[in-house]
Amino acid sequence: MPDILAASTADDWRLLDPENTLYLELASGRVVIELAPDFAPAHVANVKTLAREHYFDGLAIVRSHDNYVVQWADPNAEKPELARKLQTAKKTLPPEFERSLDAKVLFTRLPDGDVYAPEVGFSANFPVGRDPKSGKMWLAHCYGMVGAGRDAPADSGGGTELYVVTGHSPRHLDRNVTLLGRVVKGMELLSALPRGTGALGFYEKPEQRVAIKAMRVASEVPAAERTPLELLRIDTQTFQKLLEARRNRHEEWFHFQAGKVEICNVPLPVRPAAK
Amino acid sequence: MPDILAASTADDWRLLDPENTLYLELASGRVVIELAPDFAPAHVANVKTLAREHYFDGLAIVRSHDNYVVQWADPNAEKPELARKLQTAKKTLPPEFERSLDAKVLFTRLPDGDVYAPEVGFSANFPVGRDPKSGKMWLAHCYGMVGAGRDAPADSGGGTELYVVTGHSPRHLDRNVTLLGRVVKGMELLSALPRGTGALGFYEKPEQRVAIKAMRVASEVPAAERTPLELLRIDTQTFQKLLEARRNRHEEWFHFQAGKVEICNVPLPVRPAAK
Repeated sequence: MPDILAASTADDWRLLDPENTLYLELASGRVVIELAPDFAPAHVANVKTLAREHYFDGLAIVRSHDNYVVQWADPNAEKPELARKLQTAKKTLPPEFERSLDAKVLFTRLPDGDVYAPEVGFSANFPVGRDPKSGKMWLAHCYGMVGAGRDAPADSGGGTELYVVTGHSPRHLDRNVTLLGRVVKGMELLSALPRGTGALGFYEKPEQRVAIKAMRVASEVPAAERTPLELLRIDTQTFQKLLEARRNRHEEWFHFQAGKVEICNVPLPVRPAAK
Repeated sequence: MPDILAASTADDWRLLDPENTLYLELASGRVVIELAPDFAPAHVANVKTLAREHYFDGLAIVRSHDNYVVQWADPNAEKPELARKLQTAKKTLPPEFERSLDAKVLFTRLPDGDVYAPEVGFSANFPVGRDPKSGKMWLAHCYGMVGAGRDAPADSGGGTELYVVTGHSPRHLDRNVTLLGRVVKGMELLSALPRGTGALGFYEKPEQRVAIKAMRVASEVPAAERTPLELLRIDTQTFQKLLEARRNRHEEWFHFQAGKVEICNVPLPVRPAAK
């Protein structure tokens, strides 16, 4: 893989758009999230509004469920007198679990098969499932994907609670919850958090929670303080070479070639942007 | 799932055999590993010998690679004058990457399909792949599986370095390395360790390593100090009900039914043994 990336051209990469990027600021560092407005336009817009209105600042990571997710939210969300007030952002939204197929939405199919979806592939740098029969496509719950937590009703989420997949990809959640982005840098700041010992991995004591210093849309952060990143474009020969190198590993260490690669095992390379 | 398990009978469970169980003792607690002698008899025997000869005591977890593995080993393995001496255990063994199909080895097929293997299923409480054409079966790299690290030659491992899968299941490793067991309790003591910042997730400073207090075969630990556990037998109606409840989730929260379950998303329940 390093050889393939070293041979890539500048055109193989695209700059992460600051208007489409969130920074989750923790004491341990910055988590960078690329948003997916093609799949969850209302949720993305709402989360950006929440970030602009500093909704998340001082809230906390309240849950770390082993082999599943971490989640951040208002710890006082259920206590009306203490709960963080919304300004113009919405508390809940209609679900955006899937969307219609649309030729304008980039899709690069992965022909290797899948247990959960009739077809899988990539749209920009997001793993997606598709069903030509129903005419729908949706983001897939791979490691690092970011979603909007909700209660039982489909329309009870809106982005005030966000989760990130930190374990084996829980693909049974696909089409059940609105995914809206992917962590492109800083996963280890979330995945290595101590696991909560309460039900569903909730932290049982307030002092176990991990404080959120701030969450910001990158475009609102002074340019000098941003984390400029580039993502390998998936509609390139370089990406196809990388897929092939994952199906059939030529490193000396490998003695058996799988011949296939599963959607959530495909690397989606990210690098610091050229200056 | 809790309802299905609550309705299970005592016969649906089997006691973890202390002779077939390893305890990895860390300052943070005990990790319990069930060994898989049906698949890696020589490696299992060698690791038990290493444990009996206290080979691992005072060694360390040297690597935590995000979305991949943790690994423990002798940090001085490459320095002949400092390296831990072997007694009767072997340093290396011929590979046990796969084994022949054998009617005596229990197998419960999972008919839901798989990207990597012609057939998948469970053998005792281990996820396995099978290929009727080649007449082989092998353990699958799901979350929590334990393997014997090796260098490039296939016969360069033997159990003196062990790794545990802590991320999305790296199934491309199947048939490339000897798996020999599965963590059945204490995964969170491994999965939440800080990620190493060196190449491949190695800890760069000795003080970042996590000391191993001891590794023991459970049968050599006084009975009162053991962790008695039971595992749900996979050749039961209860396990089939559990599979069906995972394919089609009846909890109120789910609005879309996947209809399938992928091998590494199947829970393999473990509970404290009845007294």
